[in-house]
Amino acid sequence: MTTPLRLGIAGLGTVGAGVVKIVQSHANLLAQRSGRPVVITAVSARTRARDRGVDLSAYAWEDDPVALARREDVDVLVELMGGSDGPAKAATEAALAEGKDVVTANKAMLALHGQALAEAAEQAGRVIRFEAAVAGGIPVIKALTEGLAGNRIERVMGVMNGTCNYILTRMESEGLPYETVFEEANALGYLEADPTLDVGGIDAGHKLALLSSIAFGTRVDFDGVELEGIERVSIVDIRHAADMGFRIKLLGVAQMTGRGLEQRMSPCLVPAHSPLGTLEGPTNMVVLEGDSVGQVVLRGAGAGEGPTASAVMGDVMDIARGCRLPTFGQPAAGLATARSARASAAAPYYLRMELEDRPGALAKVATVLGEAGISIDRMRQYRHKDPTAPVLIVTHKTTRDALDHARAGFAATGVVVGEPVALRIEQV
Amino acid sequence: MTTPLRLGIAGLGTVGAGVVKIVQSHANLLAQRSGRPVVITAVSARTRARDRGVDLSAYAWEDDPVALARREDVDVLVELMGGSDGPAKAATEAALAEGKDVVTANKAMLALHGQALAEAAEQAGRVIRFEAAVAGGIPVIKALTEGLAGNRIERVMGVMNGTCNYILTRMESEGLPYETVFEEANALGYLEADPTLDVGGIDAGHKLALLSSIAFGTRVDFDGVELEGIERVSIVDIRHAADMGFRIKLLGVAQMTGRGLEQRMSPCLVPAHSPLGTLEGPTNMVVLEGDSVGQVVLRGAGAGEGPTASAVMGDVMDIARGCRLPTFGQPAAGLATARSARASAAAPYYLRMELEDRPGALAKVATVLGEAGISIDRMRQYRHKDPTAPVLIVTHKTTRDALDHARAGFAATGVVVGEPVALRIEQV
Repeated sequence: MTTPLRLGIAGLGTVGAGVVKIVQSHANLLAQRSGRPVVITAVSARTRARDRGVDLSAYAWEDDPVALARREDVDVLVELMGGSDGPAKAATEAALAEGKDVVTANKAMLALHGQALAEAAEQAGRVIRFEAAVAGGIPVIKALTEGLAGNRIERVMGVMNGTCNYILTRMESEGLPYETVFEEANALGYLEADPTLDVGGIDAGHKLALLSSIAFGTRVDFDGVELEGIERVSIVDIRHAADMGFRIKLLGVAQMTGRGLEQRMSPCLVPAHSPLGTLEGPTNMVVLEGDSVGQVVLRGAGAGEGPTASAVMGDVMDIARGCRLPTFGQPAAGLATARSARASAAAPYYLRMELEDRPGALAKVATVLGEAGISIDRMRQYRHKDPTAPVLIVTHKTTRDALDHARAGFAATGVVVGEPVALRIEQV
Repeated sequence: MTTPLRLGIAGLGTVGAGVVKIVQSHANLLAQRSGRPVVITAVSARTRARDRGVDLSAYAWEDDPVALARREDVDVLVELMGGSDGPAKAATEAALAEGKDVVTANKAMLALHGQALAEAAEQAGRVIRFEAAVAGGIPVIKALTEGLAGNRIERVMGVMNGTCNYILTRMESEGLPYETVFEEANALGYLEADPTLDVGGIDAGHKLALLSSIAFGTRVDFDGVELEGIERVSIVDIRHAADMGFRIKLLGVAQMTGRGLEQRMSPCLVPAHSPLGTLEGPTNMVVLEGDSVGQVVLRGAGAGEGPTASAVMGDVMDIARGCRLPTFGQPAAGLATARSARASAAAPYYLRMELEDRPGALAKVATVLGEAGISIDRMRQYRHKDPTAPVLIVTHKTTRDALDHARAGFAATGVVVGEPVALRIEQV
């Protein structure tokens, strides 16, 4: 095959410019590795007149990404505009309808419309690849879909939002409250225009939903992801968790349980010395667990021009080399509709509460736990000056139902002040 | 494609039995994911009458692996016999000549005959895949060849012999000398029949040579790997290194330098808190560095039935799905013959030596270093009872040549007792 593979790039932000740089600077390398030239024929973005640090003069320009997608001289639409609907979806649909492959970094679009797009791609005999949509430069979609294809996947976990991990590790290292670090991150431009996408766990939840689909052969179900952001993680809990050998991470966990598919994106405690626990700053980490392979851990940059462009080019090279897989690793029609299970896998929990400082208070709490069937692994009551006593409890494995039962019980004791904090301890 | 993909498995040791188990237990999963049934038609091993914990009665039996490779009802030879030559090579060559694909876990065969086999495969229009040959269940060949295909690779590093890492971490955690832990490992059956393959770094060196070829587009050059085993790593150095924030690992490093391709497999110091430094026991880790992606770290089980069989099946599934790449990621004819460079990339070094306890001794050593152009980052002289004083030095970045120069100088001082220990500190 010496026919060139011709790319049309829609979206020329950081990642788009990064892709252009790789295609321009590594032309020989790409041709050697794929056996054919990889070239850009046309590009599209909102504003033409803007210096992007790359020379676009050799490429046709389209104002309209849909027109780009339909061009006869484009074999692959590289969709880097973002947004779950609008131009990104329109261009993707147009490309598939015209018999072109699509490479995209768009997690929102696939998390919300993945099934329909996968079906459209298969109907057209084309592929949609999206390595760049999950965990930046880490080739995790490939590892899960292809490298681990001989495994029944048991669990997928990941720290997949670099901004959240930056905020949490900086809170811990500097002893700063959430609000302060959030403002810092915002000032540094680390947050999305709508910060809820990051700190609310939505962006990471999109990624988890995509991994789940591949891992368990189920239709993408973002609505089935239980989302909890990091907004309520306090420096107090970070410190107490550290005291007990844990770190708090915004952790995505997907696993198939007897009650259905469990997908959670929430702040969890992990052992400080585990791979996930040692993860600092904006780095991403994904943990894949298969019945044969055991645990495979992948770590790398989760965002940024180079890493994301690298992931896009990995997909482009697969297409150039003729490796063509269904979007979620098996034909879309065969993907099951998973029953969505509210976190049903048992786990130990970290509980923190404030008790009124009077005789019998602790006994009442212990009784509530016992009645809910929850046994205590470790408990600490701290010396204090306030009228209330801070108490930490690490439970043995228990269920969310038992925990809800206990919470109701705490309220009835009359000695628990305010709402107890409960964080799951994920066993990694 | 609903034609079954028919495997012939040569070699029914641990890994072979593991592959049979996956094919038997996950038939539906494999068919869903690849779009076609994956079946075993024939097997071969040295002894037929042996309980391998799997039911082989449905498969044809061949005493001769070459006959297996030539069977008309075999599409893919799964070569799991091992050995660089002999039956493994003969069967591989026979399979290719008969127009069959080959999946192998045989690092020695590919490290020594990779170029010839790759050429034979391409001539026959067939593929050789070998994910299982490097780092067990970690999909590192795939990550490097495909996921990072848009990158110029800058460096590849890895802890790829689980037995060596087990020995080194156990020496450190238990404070035991090398010989004791070596005997333990031997008694536990962790070592190859010829232990030099493990502790001499040969097995890991084979793996490094394979990664180098893919990373740098060069012909496999195992002879170009500078090999140093762990036999001379002492508990004294492990302790001193730990004191200074390092751990000693049998680390493979491959990088392209101005003077040629540098491939080293040797005991190195790495920062204790780096991903490589935190690696315990038999786990493997590979670090890939690309110009766009930055650093990607992969971690998982480097050996064992399940992980290795998982890697074999990843390759089988690629073939079932029609993903076909040249052996080393680009056509064999295009692979360059790399000039082999003796470790030329500069690095800091850890030096330990025994000095005669008399005035001016340390000054003489410092002078020798200065004259060799080596500057000192940190130095410690320890309190001692012996007639000689232990001295540790961490240098700033320097070259092997400068170090050799200094070593000659030490000998001439008359105050350095015995041979100084010099270990490279790899910057990770």
